[in-house]
Amino acid sequence: MKIYSPVEVIKRKRNGHVLTKEEIHYFITNFLNGDIPEYQVSALLMAIHFKGLDDEETMAFTKELIDSGEIVDLSHINKPKIDKHSTGGVGDKTSIILAPLVSCFDIVVPMMSGRGLGHTGGTLDKLESIPGFNVNLSTEEFISILEKYNVCMIGQTATLTPGDKRLYEMRDVTATVENIGLITASITSKKIAEGADGIVYDVKVGTGSTLPTLEESKKLAGSLINATKQFNKKAIAILTDMNEPLGYAIGNWNEIEECVTIMNPKLKTNPLSDDLIVVTLTLAGGMLMLGGKCRTIEEGISLSKQKIESGECFDKFINMVEAQGGDSSYFKTLRPYPGAKVREEITIESDGYVSKLDALQFGLAAVNLGCGRKKVDDKVDYSAGIILLKKIGDKVKKGDILCLLFGESDEKINHALEYLRTGIEISATHITKNTKIIEVIA
Amino acid sequence: MKIYSPVEVIKRKRNGHVLTKEEIHYFITNFLNGDIPEYQVSALLMAIHFKGLDDEETMAFTKELIDSGEIVDLSHINKPKIDKHSTGGVGDKTSIILAPLVSCFDIVVPMMSGRGLGHTGGTLDKLESIPGFNVNLSTEEFISILEKYNVCMIGQTATLTPGDKRLYEMRDVTATVENIGLITASITSKKIAEGADGIVYDVKVGTGSTLPTLEESKKLAGSLINATKQFNKKAIAILTDMNEPLGYAIGNWNEIEECVTIMNPKLKTNPLSDDLIVVTLTLAGGMLMLGGKCRTIEEGISLSKQKIESGECFDKFINMVEAQGGDSSYFKTLRPYPGAKVREEITIESDGYVSKLDALQFGLAAVNLGCGRKKVDDKVDYSAGIILLKKIGDKVKKGDILCLLFGESDEKINHALEYLRTGIEISATHITKNTKIIEVIA
Repeated sequence: MKIYSPVEVIKRKRNGHVLTKEEIHYFITNFLNGDIPEYQVSALLMAIHFKGLDDEETMAFTKELIDSGEIVDLSHINKPKIDKHSTGGVGDKTSIILAPLVSCFDIVVPMMSGRGLGHTGGTLDKLESIPGFNVNLSTEEFISILEKYNVCMIGQTATLTPGDKRLYEMRDVTATVENIGLITASITSKKIAEGADGIVYDVKVGTGSTLPTLEESKKLAGSLINATKQFNKKAIAILTDMNEPLGYAIGNWNEIEECVTIMNPKLKTNPLSDDLIVVTLTLAGGMLMLGGKCRTIEEGISLSKQKIESGECFDKFINMVEAQGGDSSYFKTLRPYPGAKVREEITIESDGYVSKLDALQFGLAAVNLGCGRKKVDDKVDYSAGIILLKKIGDKVKKGDILCLLFGESDEKINHALEYLRTGIEISATHITKNTKIIEVIA
Repeated sequence: MKIYSPVEVIKRKRNGHVLTKEEIHYFITNFLNGDIPEYQVSALLMAIHFKGLDDEETMAFTKELIDSGEIVDLSHINKPKIDKHSTGGVGDKTSIILAPLVSCFDIVVPMMSGRGLGHTGGTLDKLESIPGFNVNLSTEEFISILEKYNVCMIGQTATLTPGDKRLYEMRDVTATVENIGLITASITSKKIAEGADGIVYDVKVGTGSTLPTLEESKKLAGSLINATKQFNKKAIAILTDMNEPLGYAIGNWNEIEECVTIMNPKLKTNPLSDDLIVVTLTLAGGMLMLGGKCRTIEEGISLSKQKIESGECFDKFINMVEAQGGDSSYFKTLRPYPGAKVREEITIESDGYVSKLDALQFGLAAVNLGCGRKKVDDKVDYSAGIILLKKIGDKVKKGDILCLLFGESDEKINHALEYLRTGIEISATHITKNTKIIEVIA
């Protein structure tokens, strides 16, 4: 049997060699059982940052992370199990609509989401803004709700891919987050462990996304599809624009409200949600296609539209909220939600067209308003957030309100305004709205 | 005041930026006081491996390592203080002769040396093969012996550059040893802290050296000189060959014996020491030049030869041994030293010329014979070692003895023989001896 040494494995990667799956197995398992110290792990991670992981290595990493915990077994449910994963954006609330929507088609959606991270929002935080909504279910409760309603939205359970959590915590503090192989292993391992047999990847492109260029985002999309297929799961990736926030609401409760406005046929949808609807329906189309309910994404989009218009999607959403302990009176009777203490508006200073609403700056502003966490134990303010009244390409006049900020103190509002100062631009000449769907990669 | 974050510093280096001296100060001091964890240090070290350190950064690292401990103050001794540092080789015993030799010229030689490292031997181990010789003196004892004899050879005291020790231990286990900036900071900080005001760097080139190419060795030489001069100290570097072991003895006691054979005018010098003598005299010439005792290295070589021939250097050596508690009877009365238990010879298999005596393989063989340590707490066998009877370029006949191996067991001998199998080559055609002095860089 070959004897491995941590420093030799680090050196091999540092020198640009391809690690064997035995070496990766040795390194990850011994890191997780405490026999390889963290300083050797971070050295390897930085070497990977510079030398990358090829497809085989990425698959080996993915496998080790899956094997570090349990796998949710949904094989007894005789339906397609399809999930969606987004690489993270600002105002990105598609999951809230997508999960109930796709479950209308007798597809199981075993959705495990995350919290806000950096400038990006988190689906779990948004769901928790619904009083009573419980995202911390056991694997048994998760499976039981999926059996009954086809849909359940929770946080990752502690027994799933604990190795990914350990590795991610290390990457976060050693500047080794932005590596395509490591990102792929982290995402894919979680999605496979949660029991999905088909995954639509929403890979964001633009200032508010985690990768800097379209080229990098395309590489990540290819890597995610490749890794997922290696485990005999179906996958497609949809590259979507994240240069401006998606929809008009950025925050937690206000994003839930925006979704409900779209799902509830009795309410009039805000036209500023148009981009959100396009992205959500396209992702739904992809999920239906992977679930064998249609041949093309276009067909899936058309089927999905009907489920929204009929109110079936909204009913599913209410079912899910109630099944997970959430108070549905806010949606059924439009019971008022507690408002934020302080409100501020940003007005337009000159006639023209909105040419920039930088998603990154809006995301950072929202975090500073209290929508996210700067430290792990920060409390999230569910009423805080930003409401856009204009979007890129809109014609505006001096004095028009561009957006509203909500928060608990003037200090937080002022802090948020600082970020927005460089995030907004008005052009004198006409601006075309960005296409939100950049590319579908299968 | 600017607030730094470890991950931002790591990210800046990772992205190829030049770190400010404030950032380096922040990172090193907080590492040493325990506020920055080791996993962030190793991530930074690996980023440095890939992106390097420029001259300013190298100087800042050097300064932080110096400032991590005390500096030996020799300013009250009104003589030049000149030291030599070798980047490490096999059979490299020049220090044993150089220190007493140069001290004959009323130059103070405050020499702090190291232990065997990897395949390279350590001056401290060689000195400790002399019964009673104490290399663990306090700073006060070190200064007192320097005042009296101009020369003292000890190990680095715990109060000197403790930060370098901590950082080196980390580099050793994270595959981040071979970086020119980090090597420079490590070496230069120690030499400046020990009180030298001029340093001759013996930068080894070849298979037995720590850097792989002549180009890298030249870069290191330039970097060492530059960093040293930044602290207003004098420096030159001499690139010397380390493709074959230096001299004929590899080990500990046998290397002391080889030096004594050269220093003691009553003994007949072995012609296989010719390369050792050339390198030692050239380094001595450099030291005399830095100490203001001559204008050129050639002049220094000629002065040094006289001190050896007159026996003055040998007398100084005996003084030093006795001042540091060593038993000089082995040198004065040629009292026999305990021999090794097992002896083995390697014979030549075909007529020709010795074309390869790979310094790396001979170094590894010697470590396996017991001359060095494979683990930190291994005991060194002072009688173990290798004696060369032929060197590269020598004409040989089938059946001639190439070298002798000494060790405490057949197992160790056999282990050593394995390394030598690929380390020795005999050519049918004539081979020219390597020039030992490759280049002098001032």
